[in-house]
Amino acid sequence: MVASQPAAPATRRDSHTVETLLSAAVEVFIVRGYDGTSMEDLAKAAGITKSSIYHHVAGKEELLRLSVTRALDGLFAVLGEPGAAEGRAVARLEYVVRRTCQELIENLPHVTLLLRVRGNTATEREALERRREFDHRVAALVAAAIAEGDLRAGLDPRLTSRLIFGLVNSMSEWYRPHAADHGAEADALADAVVGLLFDGLRARPEA
Amino acid sequence: MVASQPAAPATRRDSHTVETLLSAAVEVFIVRGYDGTSMEDLAKAAGITKSSIYHHVAGKEELLRLSVTRALDGLFAVLGEPGAAEGRAVARLEYVVRRTCQELIENLPHVTLLLRVRGNTATEREALERRREFDHRVAALVAAAIAEGDLRAGLDPRLTSRLIFGLVNSMSEWYRPHAADHGAEADALADAVVGLLFDGLRARPEA
Repeated sequence: MVASQPAAPATRRDSHTVETLLSAAVEVFIVRGYDGTSMEDLAKAAGITKSSIYHHVAGKEELLRLSVTRALDGLFAVLGEPGAAEGRAVARLEYVVRRTCQELIENLPHVTLLLRVRGNTATEREALERRREFDHRVAALVAAAIAEGDLRAGLDPRLTSRLIFGLVNSMSEWYRPHAADHGAEADALADAVVGLLFDGLRARPEA
Repeated sequence: MVASQPAAPATRRDSHTVETLLSAAVEVFIVRGYDGTSMEDLAKAAGITKSSIYHHVAGKEELLRLSVTRALDGLFAVLGEPGAAEGRAVARLEYVVRRTCQELIENLPHVTLLLRVRGNTATEREALERRREFDHRVAALVAAAIAEGDLRAGLDPRLTSRLIFGLVNSMSEWYRPHAADHGAEADALADAVVGLLFDGLRARPEA
């Protein structure tokens, strides 16, 4: 039945690497949802055949795993940096919030996909587990900063950690890089988020 | 071909109102995504036939419109309340943030659906337009509160409005009502959000 089909045109020859295929796949996952994306959709978006995709990866779940692992590794790497590991807890927390904002912006597609993961596959459940672990580490930092007297005494560490990342992660809903150098943009946004979270919106008399 | 199909069982008789059908549909839209939901999915979730659904509404877009309109009408009603219309801008802003948190919690499924709308249909585009109008109204309040000297002078009103609702709306990602009386829960969460946004996390010497 398929013997008379024309050969795939030369423009569809596979010049992809795993990296370029991953970028194309993540865009489709974000627009259509991971569950709503078929291998056919991925092949169309990448401009190659389904069987070419299987030369690079075992299937769409491997692409999801590569993406969310990259986002999560970036976030956990922040916790290992000296700014997150040394000094008063409030300074470490501030460092983590600032760097998390920057990670979100530098790694926007992967972090956006991570934030949409709902737990329908083993890969998604592992990703949610690692997100929870990250939240616990930050909640512990909040608790330590309260104990050291640097954050308000009445705060609930777990709720505070949720609200902090609710704010940080919400940037993925509207942030789109404009400048060629979006490092400066990332720094300005991180400053705004850190200022809002730590000092609030209200004007105060000069200390 | 279908003449020998059995009649629908009695348990599938349609006891729905538009209201109960809407509740069922919104749950499915949130889980599967609006685009990913077929009339077949809606019929299954509601336990009635597709043609019974058409007795209540013109189709799935009408169900989406009923839901997001309810969420948006609730938010805009807040702007018309005396607490949002009278007094210093900072107090009005604080009132709007608190009431928006409460609206999100009281109206959770409809607001959650509203926040997922991406603009693929006329109904979605109108909803996004009304969300933008709401953001502009709040950005104007932020600007007024800066001008009155009650909020920090360096704030960008538009970015601030986005961050405020980023934080408020993020609660829809994790909040699930526990208590029978979730009014008290809603008030406690609204207090936490207002405290974080206006006063920040940092401990301060007593005034």
